[in-house]
Formats: sequence, structure tokens, C-alpha cells
Amino acid sequence: MEEWTVKVEQSDNKKEKPDTEQLEFGRSFTDHMFVMDYSEPVGWHDARIVPYQPLTIEPSAMAFHYGQSVFEGMKAYHAQNGDIQLFRPDKNLARLNHSNDRLCIPPIDEEFVLKAIKQLVYMDKEWIPKAEGTSLYIRPFIISTEPYLGVAPSHHYKLIVILSPVGAYYKEGINPVKIAVENHYVRAVKGGTGEAKTGGNYASSLKAQEVVGKQGYSQVLWLDGVEKKYIEEVGSMNVFFKINGEVVTPALNGSILSGITRDSVIEMLKYWDIPVSERRISMEELYQAYLDGQLEEAFGTGTAAVISPIGELAWEGKKIHVNEGEIGNVAKRLYDTMSGIQYGKVEDPFGWIVKVKEAAPVK
Amino acid sequence: MEEWTVKVEQSDNKKEKPDTEQLEFGRSFTDHMFVMDYSEPVGWHDARIVPYQPLTIEPSAMAFHYGQSVFEGMKAYHAQNGDIQLFRPDKNLARLNHSNDRLCIPPIDEEFVLKAIKQLVYMDKEWIPKAEGTSLYIRPFIISTEPYLGVAPSHHYKLIVILSPVGAYYKEGINPVKIAVENHYVRAVKGGTGEAKTGGNYASSLKAQEVVGKQGYSQVLWLDGVEKKYIEEVGSMNVFFKINGEVVTPALNGSILSGITRDSVIEMLKYWDIPVSERRISMEELYQAYLDGQLEEAFGTGTAAVISPIGELAWEGKKIHVNEGEIGNVAKRLYDTMSGIQYGKVEDPFGWIVKVKEAAPVK
Ligand SMILES: Cc1ncc(COP(=O)(O)O)c(C=O)c1O
Ligand SMILES: Cc1ncc(COP(=O)(O)O)c(C=O)c1O
Repeated sequence: MEEWTVKVEQSDNKKEKPDTEQLEFGRSFTDHMFVMDYSEPVGWHDARIVPYQPLTIEPSAMAFHYGQSVFEGMKAYHAQNGDIQLFRPDKNLARLNHSNDRLCIPPIDEEFVLKAIKQLVYMDKEWIPKAEGTSLYIRPFIISTEPYLGVAPSHHYKLIVILSPVGAYYKEGINPVKIAVENHYVRAVKGGTGEAKTGGNYASSLKAQEVVGKQGYSQVLWLDGVEKKYIEEVGSMNVFFKINGEVVTPALNGSILSGITRDSVIEMLKYWDIPVSERRISMEELYQAYLDGQLEEAFGTGTAAVISPIGELAWEGKKIHVNEGEIGNVAKRLYDTMSGIQYGKVEDPFGWIVKVKEAAPVK
Repeated sequence: MEEWTVKVEQSDNKKEKPDTEQLEFGRSFTDHMFVMDYSEPVGWHDARIVPYQPLTIEPSAMAFHYGQSVFEGMKAYHAQNGDIQLFRPDKNLARLNHSNDRLCIPPIDEEFVLKAIKQLVYMDKEWIPKAEGTSLYIRPFIISTEPYLGVAPSHHYKLIVILSPVGAYYKEGINPVKIAVENHYVRAVKGGTGEAKTGGNYASSLKAQEVVGKQGYSQVLWLDGVEKKYIEEVGSMNVFFKINGEVVTPALNGSILSGITRDSVIEMLKYWDIPVSERRISMEELYQAYLDGQLEEAFGTGTAAVISPIGELAWEGKKIHVNEGEIGNVAKRLYDTMSGIQYGKVEDPFGWIVKVKEAAPVK
């Protein structure tokens, strides 16, 4: 891999940047993108940064038919001292390779791709919005491109990284959300692809989302696919509950995505000596804790929202109201510290921040 | 819909047709394809037959990220009297809409799309191979094309139909296959997307396929995702067993694809007064029947193979040998009759055949 370089083709047609106030998640994209191809027997090759542009792909490309694709999501932050910061990007690239393995996609060189991402972010750094809570969303994804209609792993892939400036998640302060517990549809099951960040998991979640959306809930809380008893995760967040002083989150059981925010929350709680456990937790147990007055906090964790307090949970006709619809103390402290670290306002004792500097181009 | 027409742009650069002897499934494509777009509030529009060509798609198109896509598979046969025949295509288009519903994709006008497919097949009719057992595979698929990174149903789609000439499935006579029963990985679970023909189901199947492939098995027999006890289906086939004179196939339970060959087999058996039942069947029961000498036949059913006899099943270290590795009488009769109907050699008492004729272009 040492001889790898990233070829750069500058865009000579720079786009107008959207107004920070009007930024919507995932709607506008920067001037460049990173692309790398895979084919056999060469492996990954032809790493390049090119002007952001449409792809030209055969209609028979496997990605359109058999869903062999994976992706990641992370952010670049404009720190208050002007630095450009990434948050644990090595974890995202390790997870990408984990997803690759499940989907029979050849592994990437994590270090090389991280370098390429840094180079791309640096090139498009003017696109990182500066206002509080805003960031540049980084979306690496891999698609199978072999023009073949057989159900088998592809022999050709494209890894692409695109960048999208995103506005503040909490424009009007942090308001707890209403979540519906899903009893009919299943997102993922042990032995399936729940642990991987692959399109199929999200495709299968749309229907439930649509149903609860009409009832005024913002997201679905998924239960295990086997017994529909145990709590798994929310749409695109892992979930935590504070019960009688202890913070509990479902253990990684093979069908839950191993969230990087989740992992960071657990480390942070341990650092603060707040009791935290990863274990199986049923809706029964949660409801009983609520009836007993012991359910103190509930919140989701994910790259988009960092921490998203849950104010109400609807389950089998019953309603659980958490902390009188206010964000809890632990959730607040987690949010402030985590986003403080991300924006360089709070010291990072964990070594989570990776700076993006004008480096020698990747070699 | 009455004003709909299919615009036609003829290819002026006709490709060379592959040698029938060398035909591989899903590798070569004909001169034209059908395309139709969806956007709101117009709905499906701009139906057109154009030269077969690569697609130009934004890297942020949802299909690459969140797997919101569905597909179908059927065949056009060159009948012995020269007619072009389709086999129950209305069923495929109804299933496409069923898949659409599960994946939150707007429904298509089944009748209109069937007419468009006929027109496309007729245009490229020189591509239908004539040798015994060969056919023209028809692949309709829908992809979400909105350039947006949010997890939500897309507002833009493309329906595309491509055609691929395919060789005979059984070149050297019908040889029963060896199948491994999968105990670890899960393809689909009740409440998930198993009933829909969507990429994610196939993506999630690759890993198990890879594992058993190395052990010399050609496909995986999936068990239910909840108890891993009950038989579901094979890779891209439904499955039937003849036990003590009765033909048994797993009932459609929400996680199994409702195969059109499966449905046709059931109708045909009923027509012949051969006992057939759709019910839950466990591997335990199957193994016991085998030990008792009552497992008389086992076979898969699907558009690709029609009927694929199973000669050996491996399950938890045990081996089940079926009918001394020979195709059984019922499987043979089903194969001969079904493919006889498809190629116009046998009368079709069911009304399954739909002819493709030079019709007035779709209006
Ligand atoms: C299904 C799912 N669960 C959890 C998460 C949270 O993961 P992370 O904290 O790495 O963003 C995400 C978002 O990435 C997700 O898509
Ligand atoms: C998962 C799965 N099961 C069963 C089948 C058989 O269905 P059909 O008989 O309609 O081809 C297929 C193929 O389409 C399939 O992909």
C-alpha cells in the first residue's frame, strides 16, 4: 500500500455554499469527493479526489439489485480555535470493515482511507459551517458495481466519500422526543445484518417509521426480532435509560449497531464514576421501573443528535413519561461534554479528537 | 393513465449477440431497456424505451445508502411454434407492488408496465435464444434516486426493465443438488422484509452462502429467524418435500418469498389430485421422516431452475440423502409439465401463458 497516492483533480466550477441558517441535513454537497475502485486481482486502486459529480453505473450493477452496500457517518467540526476536528474517525473505519466482512465486501486499508478523508475535508474546508452546533457530515460508502445479475459477492466495488454541510440539530434548544415502541415490524434479528451498517436495515425500517410518524411519534424503538420483548435501539440511535441511579443500555447482541456515540457515552460515564451497565433489558422491566418511579432518564445517542432525550415512550397502548418531558441531568452533562469535546471547548481526556491539518498529500 | 405512451428511441448501434452455447446467467444484456421515472406530485411519468445504457446517478441517491429498492425476475420463452411466451407475468407485477408497499415505494400501474414489458421484449425479440431450455430473463427493478442522505422514503424513483438472454439451467441433465441447512445466519424474520423482493434480503444471504460454498454445498436452506427450527426456503427457491405420499411446503408466514413457481406447483399438484399442503414443517420432523424412510422427494422451485431436485441435505452434522440422489417422479413430472407449458410443448389448462405479439405500441 505504500505506493498508494491520491490523485487530485480540482473542481474549476466551485458551487455556491448554502446559507448556514437554511442548512438541511444531507441535502447539499461540497465541491469534491473521494473515489477508489476495487477489482480483482488488483484490489483497491485508483484512489482519487475529483469534482463532486454523478456516477455512471450500469443498470445491471449489483448494488441496484442485491443490496450489497455499506456506509458510515461521521462529522468534521470547526473548533472554536479554528481547528478542524474529527471525532474517533478510526472507529468509523473499523466499523466499515466490520460491515464489509458481514456483507462479503473486501476490507479497506483503514489508515489510508482516513488519510484520504482528511485530505478531502481539508480541500473542502471552506464548506465546514462555523455556527454553533453545525458541522460537515462525512459519508463514506461502498457499492457493488459488477454488471451481473447473480446472487453472489460482487468482484467490483466503488468506495466513495461525500461531504455535506449540516445545520444545528437542536435549533430551538434540546427538546425531548416522543418515541413509539414497535411491536409488529422488525428491523434486524440475531444472525441477520443488524450489526452492520448496510442499506437493507434502513430500508426495512421505513414502513414502521411511516406508521408511527402518522401518529405523531418521531421515531421507532425497536424490540428484538425473536421475542419482541427486549429493547434494541432507536431508528439511527442507540438507547440508554437511567433507572434508580444506574445507566443501562442494551448489550451488543449481534442485531444492534455498535454506535460510536454509545461507546463514548459508556466510557464517559465510567470516567465520571456513574454506574453504567450493558445488558438485556425488556420493555416489561422498563415499564415496571416507570411505575415504581425509578425511570429517571431516557435518551438516544448517535452522530447526528449526539444525545437526544426521550420525553415519552408509547408501548402497547400505555404511555411512559420520562422526567416530566425535560432533559435529565446525566443526558445534559453527556451532551455538554461530548459536544464540548467535539467543538474544542472542553478538554478531551480520552484522546478522541483527531485534527485535520494541511498535511503532505497522502502517499 | 390513459394518456400514457411509451416513447421509443431505437438503438442505432446493435450489439453482437452472445453464442447460445456460451450464455451465462445475467451477464449480457439486450439492445434496449425500459425506463420510467417517479417524482412528486406527478407520479410515474416519462415511460420510454431507450438504448441499453449506463445510468447517471448522484452519489447521494438514496438507493446507494438506504437500500430502498425492489426487483422482479421472469422470463420470455421462444415456444416451439415460434411464439414468444411469458409465464404468469401478472403475478410478477403484483408481487412487485407488494414489495413496493413493504418498502414504501409508490405503486406502479401493473397493466401498463406489463404492456411496456411486452413492447420491450418484442423489440428485442431477436435476443431470445431458441435452443432447448434457454430464455430471455426479464429484470424489472425500482431504485430510489432522491439525492438526500436522510432515512425516509425517497420522493424520486426509477423503474427500469433490462433483458438478459440466458442459457439452459440444466445443460447436462437434471442433477440433484447438495444443500446445507443454515443454523447461524438468518435471511429474514417475521416482521422484516422476507416477503418482499428487495436487495437487503439477498445481501444478508451472501455470507452464509460463502461459508457453505467452501464446504461443497450449492445453496443454503434457511430456517425461521425466531426458533431456527422451521424450514423457510432455499437461496432463491421455495422448497417442497414429498413425505409419505404427501407434498409439503412451508406456509407463507411473512418471512418467505411467495414464489410464482411455488404457487404454480401447488395448483398443478391439486389439478393432478396429488395431496399437497402448505404448513409449518421443522427440520426435526423432516429428519424423522427421513429416518422412518418416508422422505420420498425434496426439490426447490424458482424461475431460474423451474424445479431443482435436492439430493442431499446437511443439518447439524447429520446428512439426509433423498431418493438415492435421483430426481423423484413428482419433481420430474412437475418439471416436464411446467417447462412444457413454458415452451408451448404441453397444453396450458391453467391460462398461465401470455403471448407477446406485435401489438399497437402501448398507449
Ligand atoms: C441503526 C443505528 N444505530 C445507532 C446509530 C448510532 O451510531 P453512532 O453513534 O456511531 O452514530 C446509528 C447511526 O449511525 C444507526 O444508524
Ligand atoms: C428468495 C426467493 N425465494 C423464492 C424464489 C422463487 O420465486 P419464483 O418462483 O417467483 O421465481 C425466488 C426467486 O425469485 C427468490 O429470490
